Amino acid sequence: MFKHEKPMLHPVKVDAPNPQYAAMLQEQLGGSNGELKAGLQYIAQSFRIKDQEIKDLFLDIGAEELSHMEMVATMINMLNGHDLEADAMSGGSIQAHVLGGLAPLYTDASGFPWTGVYVNCTGDLPADILSNIAAEQRAKVVYEYLYRQINDKGVRETIDFLLNREEAHNALFREALNKVQNDGSNKDFGVTEDSRLYFDLSTPGKFFEHPFPTPPSFANPNQAPMQ
Amino acid sequence: MFKHEKPMLHPVKVDAPNPQYAAMLQEQLGGSNGELKAGLQYIAQSFRIKDQEIKDLFLDIGAEELSHMEMVATMINMLNGHDLEADAMSGGSIQAHVLGGLAPLYTDASGFPWTGVYVNCTGDLPADILSNIAAEQRAKVVYEYLYRQINDKGVRETIDFLLNREEAHNALFREALNKVQNDGSNKDFGVTEDSRLYFDLSTPGKFFEHPFPTPPSFANPNQAPMQ
Amino acid sequence: MFKHEKPMLHPVKVDAPNPQYAAMLQEQLGGSNGELKAGLQYIAQSFRIKDQEIKDLFLDIGAEELSHMEMVATMINMLNGHDLEADAMSGGSIQAHVLGGLAPLYTDASGFPWTGVYVNCTGDLPADILSNIAAEQRAKVVYEYLYRQINDKGVRETIDFLLNREEAHNALFREALNKVQNDGSNKDFGVTEDSRLYFDLSTPGKFFEHPFPTPPSFANPNQAPMQ
Amino acid sequence: MFKHEKPMLHPVKVDAPNPQYAAMLQEQLGGSNGELKAGLQYIAQSFRIKDQEIKDLFLDIGAEELSHMEMVATMINMLNGHDLEADAMSGGSIQAHVLGGLAPLYTDASGFPWTGVYVNCTGDLPADILSNIAAEQRAKVVYEYLYRQINDKGVRETIDFLLNREEAHNALFREALNKVQNDGSNKDFGVTEDSRLYFDLSTPGKFFEHPFPTPPSFANPNQAPMQ
Amino acid sequence: MFKHEKPMLHPVKVDAPNPQYAAMLQEQLGGSNGELKAGLQYIAQSFRIKDQEIKDLFLDIGAEELSHMEMVATMINMLNGHDLEADAMSGGSIQAHVLGGLAPLYTDASGFPWTGVYVNCTGDLPADILSNIAAEQRAKVVYEYLYRQINDKGVRETIDFLLNREEAHNALFREALNKVQNDGSNKDFGVTEDSRLYFDLSTPGKFFEHPFPTPPSFANPNQAPMQ
Amino acid sequence: MFKHEKPMLHPVKVDAPNPQYAAMLQEQLGGSNGELKAGLQYIAQSFRIKDQEIKDLFLDIGAEELSHMEMVATMINMLNGHDLEADAMSGGSIQAHVLGGLAPLYTDASGFPWTGVYVNCTGDLPADILSNIAAEQRAKVVYEYLYRQINDKGVRETIDFLLNREEAHNALFREALNKVQNDGSNKDFGVTEDSRLYFDLSTPGKFFEHPFPTPPSFANPNQAPMQ
Repeated sequence: MFKHEKPMLHPVKVDAPNPQYAAMLQEQLGGSNGELKAGLQYIAQSFRIKDQEIKDLFLDIGAEELSHMEMVATMINMLNGHDLEADAMSGGSIQAHVLGGLAPLYTDASGFPWTGVYVNCTGDLPADILSNIAAEQRAKVVYEYLYRQINDKGVRETIDFLLNREEAHNALFREALNKVQNDGSNKDFGVTEDSRLYFDLSTPGKFFEHPFPTPPSFANPNQAPMQ
Repeated sequence: MFKHEKPMLHPVKVDAPNPQYAAMLQEQLGGSNGELKAGLQYIAQSFRIKDQEIKDLFLDIGAEELSHMEMVATMINMLNGHDLEADAMSGGSIQAHVLGGLAPLYTDASGFPWTGVYVNCTGDLPADILSNIAAEQRAKVVYEYLYRQINDKGVRETIDFLLNREEAHNALFREALNKVQNDGSNKDFGVTEDSRLYFDLSTPGKFFEHPFPTPPSFANPNQAPMQ
Repeated sequence: MFKHEKPMLHPVKVDAPNPQYAAMLQEQLGGSNGELKAGLQYIAQSFRIKDQEIKDLFLDIGAEELSHMEMVATMINMLNGHDLEADAMSGGSIQAHVLGGLAPLYTDASGFPWTGVYVNCTGDLPADILSNIAAEQRAKVVYEYLYRQINDKGVRETIDFLLNREEAHNALFREALNKVQNDGSNKDFGVTEDSRLYFDLSTPGKFFEHPFPTPPSFANPNQAPMQ
Repeated sequence: MFKHEKPMLHPVKVDAPNPQYAAMLQEQLGGSNGELKAGLQYIAQSFRIKDQEIKDLFLDIGAEELSHMEMVATMINMLNGHDLEADAMSGGSIQAHVLGGLAPLYTDASGFPWTGVYVNCTGDLPADILSNIAAEQRAKVVYEYLYRQINDKGVRETIDFLLNREEAHNALFREALNKVQNDGSNKDFGVTEDSRLYFDLSTPGKFFEHPFPTPPSFANPNQAPMQ
Repeated sequence: MFKHEKPMLHPVKVDAPNPQYAAMLQEQLGGSNGELKAGLQYIAQSFRIKDQEIKDLFLDIGAEELSHMEMVATMINMLNGHDLEADAMSGGSIQAHVLGGLAPLYTDASGFPWTGVYVNCTGDLPADILSNIAAEQRAKVVYEYLYRQINDKGVRETIDFLLNREEAHNALFREALNKVQNDGSNKDFGVTEDSRLYFDLSTPGKFFEHPFPTPPSFANPNQAPMQ
Repeated sequence: MFKHEKPMLHPVKVDAPNPQYAAMLQEQLGGSNGELKAGLQYIAQSFRIKDQEIKDLFLDIGAEELSHMEMVATMINMLNGHDLEADAMSGGSIQAHVLGGLAPLYTDASGFPWTGVYVNCTGDLPADILSNIAAEQRAKVVYEYLYRQINDKGVRETIDFLLNREEAHNALFREALNKVQNDGSNKDFGVTEDSRLYFDLSTPGKFFEHPFPTPPSFANPNQAPMQ
């Protein structure tokens, strides 16, 4: 069961309206690496998981990402300001001004609607956790790009919080991956000689040796840095 | 802030696995009138609403719809059973068997991924509430179609609960509409002669008179039926 | 059978080219609440309707919406002017300048292509009519947003006509809904106690009472205002 | 302005219900080479055309394709019969049984919704006419595939009519292409040596000589066969 | 088997960064008439072709189009320059600045992702070749639109090469069509009286005569211009 | 520059036609974890990479994935057999029978067309490599699901080869990730206290401790297993 509480997970600050930046920030509301995608991906994966610890982890983070989505939407709402004026904007989606009455919408920065295609769910724990680790890293990168394109101090502080949370999730998912190292698609890890070939198909240049596949595991995930 | 509690909003019952019906039920998980759509639509609309009563109503129902989504996904999970066997299914999406390892996915019954296009959000209260009333009625209809195509008693009881909840929401949204009868797109309801014309463009046949537009309001919404 | 006549349903006026506004107006040609959507929705619904009066109404309005689509496309065509110059535009779709040779396209204001997902058709009359009423109200809202963002007198007059027609259709659809109050999904309107619950899932705040569902009907639709 | 007349352009016959075939036939209602695509493509192209003869041709054929769409939808409606029973169907879209109440929908045979992406419109007459010629040939091919998979005599006669009309349109478009041989993208047909090269990139095998580009024109389009 | 070689098929020149033009040029990387579409369309068609000469032609041109895609992506990469600055751009996709770190993406100029819907493949040679001829002509038109909107000499030279190659392919495909004039959908070219009708559905105006369909063939394809 | 050679990268074997399995196998041709996605993802990422060793690796694997796509398409082609007969198929896409003349198409097993949305490209090396590792693991999982649903020995051998190649790529990408451990989004890895919080939002249950984020690196990637 899902519940909602009126207070935000973390305070949202915006110093001044900035409709152009609101359009850019849409990327993290309704884009391919945004908060809605993250939340719905982890929740979808949780539905069939039997491991109670990992199921709980996915739902903890899934609910947090929905709460991030609410924060991003609130920032967009404040950045959109009060004036319908699509032609004062430069690039990006103008839907807020012609369709949504300045409300945040589930689209990316170019107005492309959120799609279930963003969600990776294979029913296999190692694969799903690797998808989540990659998703968190990409989300961090997008926040870095957005951070560099605004000076608004409130927005920067809010993005900084969200960006740090992606790191937290990434570390937790890496720890979870190591826990399932012998499960699902990693179980009975038998490979043939075919997996040790290297096809040098782009020429000139060959810089990597023949691979010797092993199940993926992360070095020292989620460990306190040495003093 | 969103939170999750492990118990379902209402118990989910499935008497026997039925992968074909699982594929059909996907329509109410990831389809155009499904639970994810309903939940995300009301939440999206809530972001910019200033009226605290209606904002709370939208978030109450939005959180409930996410909880329905969890119920539908759980039913699908149980109906999918334990055997990957796409070619034993007749029509509908086979993605659970070739992509998702029998996990529920955000697609409709034909495998088309959920899209933000399903969500109607205009930033205008009367328009958004009318969209919600229509959405609830359509969801009810889809549940009726699904109800008629299965004999599984557990599934029927669960669908019956979900169908009744659509009625509850519909009645509440109608009451909300009457509250905003003079707001937003209903404000200053001035129309010209153009709104009173009838263009009889499909011939033969004309059965309706010239319209005299007024703001939409529902007759006796949400009132106890007379004894 | 569909036929076309060269004269427009209503004269289209544009005082001066304005490519940026042309991009914005695309929303009502190929967007989610635009004229193509309205026309194709009512036509789709008409295909299986047995009630001859309502079938005729849907086809009358469906044909009118296609005629509105032609008017909007003609406005866009005139607003696009004669110069390919995508970089002189601010936000919104630039496809007219790089793909379409300034021809109107079936996309929304951000360049997202029209999709059949916009069309609501359930084969149930009460649900479909409620969808249409909501669609008309949303279309009106989008025209209001567009109206407020231009001073071109010709464009404003044309938009005013189209906006008034949405009101006309809305009133007619409300009248139609009341006619089918005991049909389809409204028939045998039996609901259980489950439909009278209120789940207060967003806290703090609860402002609505328990619902008592009844079939939806509109108060005084399509009635002449009192003198 | 568009108008609708209740009689079909050509009688539609179906000998017996066949829900599986209805799903297949959806390809020509809402698929990539279907009637809706054809109609909307020619109408879109017509909006900016200045040549009155070709504009009229496009609108004549565009209106005819909308009338074909109505015929195909009517066939689907009859083939769908009267029983919701998705699990009795083999492959293809089951939406009619779980979403649409057996009404025809704007999707292809797999349930993928119609999209504006299907429509080719460049604002250039030679390119647009070539697109139309290709579209007509593809539509003919799909009807041939559908024809071979049913024995229902009524359906076959109706498909035969539609298939023959594609040929008619194809011939007319070829004639139109030859009329604009020196316009638009064919005007000032200067090419450089780069256009005369042949890159033999798939090996082994080279069977064509270096090209010598000229504007495309069709041999004897639309000419009465010799007696 | 596909192989890659580091040198480009043809040198790519860009005189100066121009992020706005990079966004426009995306149309030919990930748009409906772009290089990726062309390459993947011809490759898809090749998979089932039995005629070895035409299969080789499709794969020669398919591989060349992938090589063009690489050239266009390289141009976009250079035009994007080095500064993330979405709000300095006017219309078009801003994804490079908020999602892709200035890398070229498979989207069109408005940020709409490339879709398999662009690819026409019917398994019928005459239809597929006609699709290719139309695709080449449309690609040429888009390059013409792009050429007219930039003064950068390097970009213009590169576009000029690509545009000329479309002409080369067009001429080769026309030659191929004439080779298959009696195959596939052109075989047993029997048509009924229905194919000779003209429905004058857009009034006033009728400028074309009744058609007399014959299999399509091109006049003098790929012939050296007279001296 | 891309080139094509007629021989396959590895022999493709199919013992007997099986149209239903052909539809299922479409998932690895045009689906979200299929070969086309893999190939185009690595190629897209390569366009802006400056590190020559990693650029070469991405293009080696990208070209190999296109070659796998050719193998999968060839398998589908053989499995489709020679008879158009959509209604003999159970679940999954029937497009091959009504649209494609039994040719392989760029769609997934449900007929949903390939989309650029599948491609993850952020312009950041650590994020992109993590995306690739996840993609390879998911592709392996889908091949495992497909392997379990067929007894055809030839198909099983071919899938076994492809599955092993995913392992090879996975190992190589892990090695590449460790090479860029201090680059891009991993550079200056400073995090705040916010990254060390754990929000226990799904109750009851909390099984993971507070995270201590570090840059991701893999344990012993690509190392020969001990004897």
